[in-house]
Amino acid sequence: MTKRILIIGIGAGNPDYMTVQAINALNQVDVFFVMDKGVAKEKLVALRKDIIERFVNNDRYRVVEATSPERRRDEGDRDYRVAVDELNRDKQHVFERLISDELADGECGAFLVWGDPSLYDSTIRIVEAIGKAGNHTFDYEVIPGISSVQALAARHRVPLNQIGRSIEITNGRGIAEGFPNNVDSVVVMLDSQDTYRKLVDQNLDIYWGAYVGTPDEILISGKLHDVAEEIVRVRAEARNKHGWIMDTYLLRKPGDET
Amino acid sequence: MTKRILIIGIGAGNPDYMTVQAINALNQVDVFFVMDKGVAKEKLVALRKDIIERFVNNDRYRVVEATSPERRRDEGDRDYRVAVDELNRDKQHVFERLISDELADGECGAFLVWGDPSLYDSTIRIVEAIGKAGNHTFDYEVIPGISSVQALAARHRVPLNQIGRSIEITNGRGIAEGFPNNVDSVVVMLDSQDTYRKLVDQNLDIYWGAYVGTPDEILISGKLHDVAEEIVRVRAEARNKHGWIMDTYLLRKPGDET
Repeated sequence: MTKRILIIGIGAGNPDYMTVQAINALNQVDVFFVMDKGVAKEKLVALRKDIIERFVNNDRYRVVEATSPERRRDEGDRDYRVAVDELNRDKQHVFERLISDELADGECGAFLVWGDPSLYDSTIRIVEAIGKAGNHTFDYEVIPGISSVQALAARHRVPLNQIGRSIEITNGRGIAEGFPNNVDSVVVMLDSQDTYRKLVDQNLDIYWGAYVGTPDEILISGKLHDVAEEIVRVRAEARNKHGWIMDTYLLRKPGDET
Repeated sequence: MTKRILIIGIGAGNPDYMTVQAINALNQVDVFFVMDKGVAKEKLVALRKDIIERFVNNDRYRVVEATSPERRRDEGDRDYRVAVDELNRDKQHVFERLISDELADGECGAFLVWGDPSLYDSTIRIVEAIGKAGNHTFDYEVIPGISSVQALAARHRVPLNQIGRSIEITNGRGIAEGFPNNVDSVVVMLDSQDTYRKLVDQNLDIYWGAYVGTPDEILISGKLHDVAEEIVRVRAEARNKHGWIMDTYLLRKPGDET
């Protein structure tokens, strides 16, 4: 009669990114925990509910919505880690309450994670921490999903790596430190500051995408120097129009491949 | 009446990693091009055929098998890139012949790619080169798939990144140059030399997996120093038993998270 938790990657953008494994997992769930934060909240909660409605074949499940704690932003570098730690502790309390109060013994609860749960998402880390703390007994399982990185590459029809070479996946804060010297391909997620602008003097190609895989998808690619200002403008317009934006980009030092 | 090519990621290991998008794509295909090389050939060709049989609802498709050219190995560093270039030219000739001779105007052909087509796979690059060369007119599309990297992370229930930090994805040749100094998490694919042994003196955690997502899956994790020899032994035994191996690992500098 152990509780079960499924951490299910639902893919980034296109509901057709759902895997057979994720669909089968959805159909075992008694309680869906739906949480989101920030301006994207409404849209992303709606997308999760669409996925549940489309892919679940039974009506015995229930949906529990919880307010996800938010991190205070723009606090500078030194406080970033502290803020994230605090945020994750707050999240852990919310998750603990959900597992404790909303899930009966023998039931299966699920967190639906945008993209892939292993990439820039705290759900695995928080569920593991709750398990280790020992106050709650449960089994848990992770179901991978198509990440925004893969969606970006597929839609641009571009390999992430050059032949035999390495790739770095980083965030806006990472690329702000400069283009790494040991790789020639860098994928940037979670950059709200148009940080690519800082690199326009380097000889780089960019493959940028917003709302990738959705009907609102925007793709721009080219020499960074040529398209950076276009991306800044299009990105700001899209963000204004939709009220939120989720974008990703690949930066690449041109090789001798073509 | 243009020819269409679909480059379809079929996921790494578990047929349930197939996405709805990939299944829909399979069902549009007139000709499946099935190619594989090396010792894993038989197994991986069989897996593709299983996927076609399981997920395609019509019987109008045909399967064309082609012998994939092989790269000569162990030629040393300087010749590696030359050998890969030669290999890709050979592959391009094979692909061109398939598109030209085996696919009629208006038909849809597909290459089924193990894992994700954007990660350490040459199919996108070769199809793009054929299109650019201009002798063949066709449209093409890329369908993402669950990569072995994501399967590894999901099965170990571990995030790929530490909080707010970057990840490098590399191959055996890349990690042989040492643990990169600008990241704390490195995923290594395509390492046939047990290169992790070179790093046992560093304070690293390893999450290793072979045949991940399949019934033959083996997972080992722990302090690299403690488990390296076990992995070497288990890996050699498994390779002997199955005649081939496909393994991946995550190396991580322990953080202050736990």
